Amino acid sequence: MTTQSLTEQIRNKASFLCVGLDSDLAKLPAAVRNHPEAQFTFNKAIIEATHDLAVAYKINTAFYESDGSKGYQALEKTIAYLDQNHPNHFTIADAKRGDIGNTSTQYARAFFEKLPFDSVTVAPYMGRDSIEPFLQFEGKYAIMLALTSNQGAYDFQTLKTLDRSLYETVVATSRTWDGADRLMYVLGATKTEHLATIRALTPKSFFLVPGVGAQGGDLESVFHAAANEDIGLLVNSSRSIIFASSGDDYAEAARNAAKDLQQQMKKLL
Amino acid sequence: MTTQSLTEQIRNKASFLCVGLDSDLAKLPAAVRNHPEAQFTFNKAIIEATHDLAVAYKINTAFYESDGSKGYQALEKTIAYLDQNHPNHFTIADAKRGDIGNTSTQYARAFFEKLPFDSVTVAPYMGRDSIEPFLQFEGKYAIMLALTSNQGAYDFQTLKTLDRSLYETVVATSRTWDGADRLMYVLGATKTEHLATIRALTPKSFFLVPGVGAQGGDLESVFHAAANEDIGLLVNSSRSIIFASSGDDYAEAARNAAKDLQQQMKKLL
Repeated sequence: MTTQSLTEQIRNKASFLCVGLDSDLAKLPAAVRNHPEAQFTFNKAIIEATHDLAVAYKINTAFYESDGSKGYQALEKTIAYLDQNHPNHFTIADAKRGDIGNTSTQYARAFFEKLPFDSVTVAPYMGRDSIEPFLQFEGKYAIMLALTSNQGAYDFQTLKTLDRSLYETVVATSRTWDGADRLMYVLGATKTEHLATIRALTPKSFFLVPGVGAQGGDLESVFHAAANEDIGLLVNSSRSIIFASSGDDYAEAARNAAKDLQQQMKKLL
Repeated sequence: MTTQSLTEQIRNKASFLCVGLDSDLAKLPAAVRNHPEAQFTFNKAIIEATHDLAVAYKINTAFYESDGSKGYQALEKTIAYLDQNHPNHFTIADAKRGDIGNTSTQYARAFFEKLPFDSVTVAPYMGRDSIEPFLQFEGKYAIMLALTSNQGAYDFQTLKTLDRSLYETVVATSRTWDGADRLMYVLGATKTEHLATIRALTPKSFFLVPGVGAQGGDLESVFHAAANEDIGLLVNSSRSIIFASSGDDYAEAARNAAKDLQQQMKKLL
């Protein structure tokens, strides 16, 4: 997928919503919990209830790995289902990977070749040669942690390095890396005061903004601080959509929660 | 497992060797490559050839994820085999995980509850609340990236923050976290000049040192810079042991390469 086609989709749907499939087995509605393929069945229902309102789906690998290879199979089936039935949606493996070069190459192959994800989230600590392997795949993207939405973001990300904060250095430095046109950034919505700073450092990149919904964060202030002329934003919501109801109406409730966010986005666009 | 029993094992075997099972499918010897369970069969042979020389095994998750759920099953079988047949060896999921709290909890459950790993490697960028969830499991350890052995380590880890480098701040700060007695550190062997600095910051912690072997790095200088009175070191070697031969003698060659390192360790101990 190209970022141009993602932008077109954002305009056509009047939505920059990403639905996060953090499909925690312990939280699945009773209606699907005992299904032999509970996670996949749940995901399929959520996808069918929300696909016209969302432009992206984000699969959090932790919630699948915690069920071992059975969970990994649910992840495989979910991304295959998206690829076959909704190939225009942008898909994100939210995996926070990053290692020495030959290992990062293996992770890139895991998500881009073995599985048909469009992108994967990566952690910057190990630097350039841990990220560049993810940037060598045509039509595939890495989404790097820049400034995250949790309290721990203040432990290291905001430390001063030279004349600016670590997260600013991380973003600025990464713009010099090979394949930087395939690099996007994770930016916590609870830190809108910093979004404009980062937008100035990389005017054209897409930002993935988690933290609207269960983690707090204000859609309108995010939009005004970080949108560029091509929008350049994906706002993710996970729990507040997929677990909007624990009853048999979970898919309908997910649709309503997604619709609510999409309507707010439509106003902003 | 306790670090006391790990230290006893190091003394008894006169070895602080960790064998890295980076069992790249593309590099497996012809003798096992076409086996229906090639990775697991190879790992079993390597483990049986080296278990008396090594005190730890490190499983690099990337090399299993790159084969999808089939690879994940090989990972599951390998750690179950170690747990059942060699329960005294310290096992490391080399996964470099780290995310917001509820997601880190899911990763911890994946490696410590669903799978029987003793430890998992974690990345520090997201700070305290991304790591503490890994430190809440009795007898389980998180091994955090401090200073890594790749070139990209110089992109961010060595930046000055306040009066010292980021990696020093990362180590010093993490000593204040809940469960810090279950925290170990990844330290690249190619940076021995920094090992003593980090040892001073955390005198009792275990260090996992990759990079001896294929990545370069000198065992003796690592030992002198970083060993403490309980040794407090695990030195990992992956490719230079497991791929010592691509012929039918791969297991014997792995044993010889492991033996060579163990003999060097014995001299130092």
